[in-house]
Amino acid sequence: MARPHVLVVGGGFGGLATTQALRRANVDITVVDRCNHHLFQPLLYQVATASLSPSDIAEPIRSVLRGQDNAKVRLAEVLSVDPARKVVHLRDDDGTEDEVGYDKLVLAAGASHSYFGNDEWATHAPGLKTLGDALEIRRRILEAFERAEWAETDEDRRAHSTFVVIGGGPTGVELAGAIAEIAFWTLRKDFRNVDLSKARVVLLEGGPGLLTTYPPELQERARKQVERLGVEVRLNARVTNVDEDGVWIGEEHLRAATVLWAAGVKGEPVAQTLGTELDRAGRVKVLPDCSIEGHPDTFVVGDLAVYTHTPDGKPVPGVCQGAMQMGWYVARCIEDDLAGRPRGTFRFQDKGSMATIGRTKAIADLGFLRVGGLVAWLLWVFVHVLFLVTFRNRVVVMVKWAWAWVTYERASRLIWRPTEHTR
Amino acid sequence: MARPHVLVVGGGFGGLATTQALRRANVDITVVDRCNHHLFQPLLYQVATASLSPSDIAEPIRSVLRGQDNAKVRLAEVLSVDPARKVVHLRDDDGTEDEVGYDKLVLAAGASHSYFGNDEWATHAPGLKTLGDALEIRRRILEAFERAEWAETDEDRRAHSTFVVIGGGPTGVELAGAIAEIAFWTLRKDFRNVDLSKARVVLLEGGPGLLTTYPPELQERARKQVERLGVEVRLNARVTNVDEDGVWIGEEHLRAATVLWAAGVKGEPVAQTLGTELDRAGRVKVLPDCSIEGHPDTFVVGDLAVYTHTPDGKPVPGVCQGAMQMGWYVARCIEDDLAGRPRGTFRFQDKGSMATIGRTKAIADLGFLRVGGLVAWLLWVFVHVLFLVTFRNRVVVMVKWAWAWVTYERASRLIWRPTEHTR
Repeated sequence: MARPHVLVVGGGFGGLATTQALRRANVDITVVDRCNHHLFQPLLYQVATASLSPSDIAEPIRSVLRGQDNAKVRLAEVLSVDPARKVVHLRDDDGTEDEVGYDKLVLAAGASHSYFGNDEWATHAPGLKTLGDALEIRRRILEAFERAEWAETDEDRRAHSTFVVIGGGPTGVELAGAIAEIAFWTLRKDFRNVDLSKARVVLLEGGPGLLTTYPPELQERARKQVERLGVEVRLNARVTNVDEDGVWIGEEHLRAATVLWAAGVKGEPVAQTLGTELDRAGRVKVLPDCSIEGHPDTFVVGDLAVYTHTPDGKPVPGVCQGAMQMGWYVARCIEDDLAGRPRGTFRFQDKGSMATIGRTKAIADLGFLRVGGLVAWLLWVFVHVLFLVTFRNRVVVMVKWAWAWVTYERASRLIWRPTEHTR
Repeated sequence: MARPHVLVVGGGFGGLATTQALRRANVDITVVDRCNHHLFQPLLYQVATASLSPSDIAEPIRSVLRGQDNAKVRLAEVLSVDPARKVVHLRDDDGTEDEVGYDKLVLAAGASHSYFGNDEWATHAPGLKTLGDALEIRRRILEAFERAEWAETDEDRRAHSTFVVIGGGPTGVELAGAIAEIAFWTLRKDFRNVDLSKARVVLLEGGPGLLTTYPPELQERARKQVERLGVEVRLNARVTNVDEDGVWIGEEHLRAATVLWAAGVKGEPVAQTLGTELDRAGRVKVLPDCSIEGHPDTFVVGDLAVYTHTPDGKPVPGVCQGAMQMGWYVARCIEDDLAGRPRGTFRFQDKGSMATIGRTKAIADLGFLRVGGLVAWLLWVFVHVLFLVTFRNRVVVMVKWAWAWVTYERASRLIWRPTEHTR
């Protein structure tokens, strides 16, 4: 008899946690992802700001699962799910479409940024979610400095050396802090015509504070730290338009050649094909066992899921630890089903959270301990390097970091464009 | 009085050698390149075959020249040169065109691959000259394995696991050897459906031998070494057509999803605007002082120049050492001109040459010493790491190499595509 087929959609933290937790289960697993790599997303901003190379924070899904004989990897995009028939419709990497049946589905397709209905802003203000995004942002940042150097008018020079980051969450704060370090430290001596001490890095946040998931005293600390790096923080600044010249905040126009988007979150569109209830951001409202209403064999985990069945009703946060814990739990549910046992209960264990701001600057909230500054930053480095230990690249990343820290240098300041030969 | 303006076109080995040799000269230098980085081209095939990241072998020209106050860097493409008026016409990175005058021009724009009049082959058989090329080739190689894994017919599976490299020079041999290592070693355990021991790597050479600039006994040794890696070498195999299904050799069709071009060389088109004599490959025939006929202030160095005024009449080879020695010589000529001295004579010093084939396999011809195998390979590693010492990345590269050598792993096996947001 064929073994049950577990289809895992997405090779992020949620999908891989599920897959690896099933390594000894008597099932056949297929992991489907449109990218060939698992991405260590917490460090993606470091690729965008030229500190790390893509391969430092990404690992082929195939090589992560090399030793797991019950798992295959398929490079394809899932277009829709039919939970009643238990099939997904997908498009393979070469463009051909196919239908694949499943006994258990774990949908871990993730989320991307939302322009709140203004998708035309994407051209002028790219967001940061994939390696491709990171390289595009890196290219824009580095090209802006080049153009500032050779600008014909002072006005153009100012526009090219003004960087606007929209959104005061962790990604926005990290990006703004890193750009400030590049402009005011790394590149200081590389240009002859433009005076980079006059560059501007502006962080715009529509709400009244930065990093609002943190306690107020840490929010305040984060704002001070990012300002000390030279970033202009503007709170309650609601962006009303983005065009090729810059950003509109109500009647005010902020001229900037580089605008980056770090606001909003939106579930991957495949969620809409499930026929189940979504929240306003297009994420799936899951049942207490992470499955969807009426379809106990169809699970959703990670950033694509909204899980509100916690003791205090606070949703499980859309971060690595949330995705991984959901993934492990769902793997146990699948094993319970196979063994004919009732499914257990999901209990999210919050390990705390931390956000980095720049060189020696960060905040950390571990529940019992709230710190900012160097201590938080060392904690952040420790945790992230520890996490990367599952990655083969840890030595290289540590060497690069140590080097960058000592020299203020950026290892990956390369601009390139796709060749013309792209098929 | 304004200082003489030295315009250097190209930030490769020739252009940078000239610029750095003029660091104490009383001149203003502008280095113009359409890329922002200097590339360590001898290791480009390692990026194409996923061993190294782009930033390991590339360094921003700006940061190379950081300490040199008399040099500016401009990101632009030179479209034409008018040596009579001493101006170049260029297009800046942002698309605007401009004219720039010079007192001395050093044209070091390099060469790229030639399809011998069949430019339509480029889509199906990309060549390797830029970082963009390397990433495109890497993507094709890695995607081919993914497609082989999920191919629907045996015939398709064979096509996707067949790799053809056209051209038996150093680049072709390096590429074929590296692909064989990936297929037969690195990826061996990563796939479930396709048996990679049946993959084919075919190296096609139109002439009667590989690496024909080397002595016959080393050519023979190289052929044996590359065959031992599992590469099928076919000599006297003249490619008559390349299409999306593979390669035609006369009447014979070799079906292959991945075809790479490593044959032919062609000077950058800007050479045609000089109004001076070119060779059949579009390279500039320079005078004994590297200038062009009738225009003593317009020099051409590096791969774009054909220099035949050597004692034995053998042209200076199109490799790093040739480009650098020309660059240093031209810098001396410029200083001689400024000092009112007659220009010296150029003497090319051949330091020997070496080609790598794969793990522990290489050949080296140092004139007094001709070796193959492990000794040549260690020599190759030593020289290349020594060369990279001018690069900040040397530690990272060595860590990656050591790791890859021990584990047969490839650090950079990532597929990504440009985002949609590209301007």
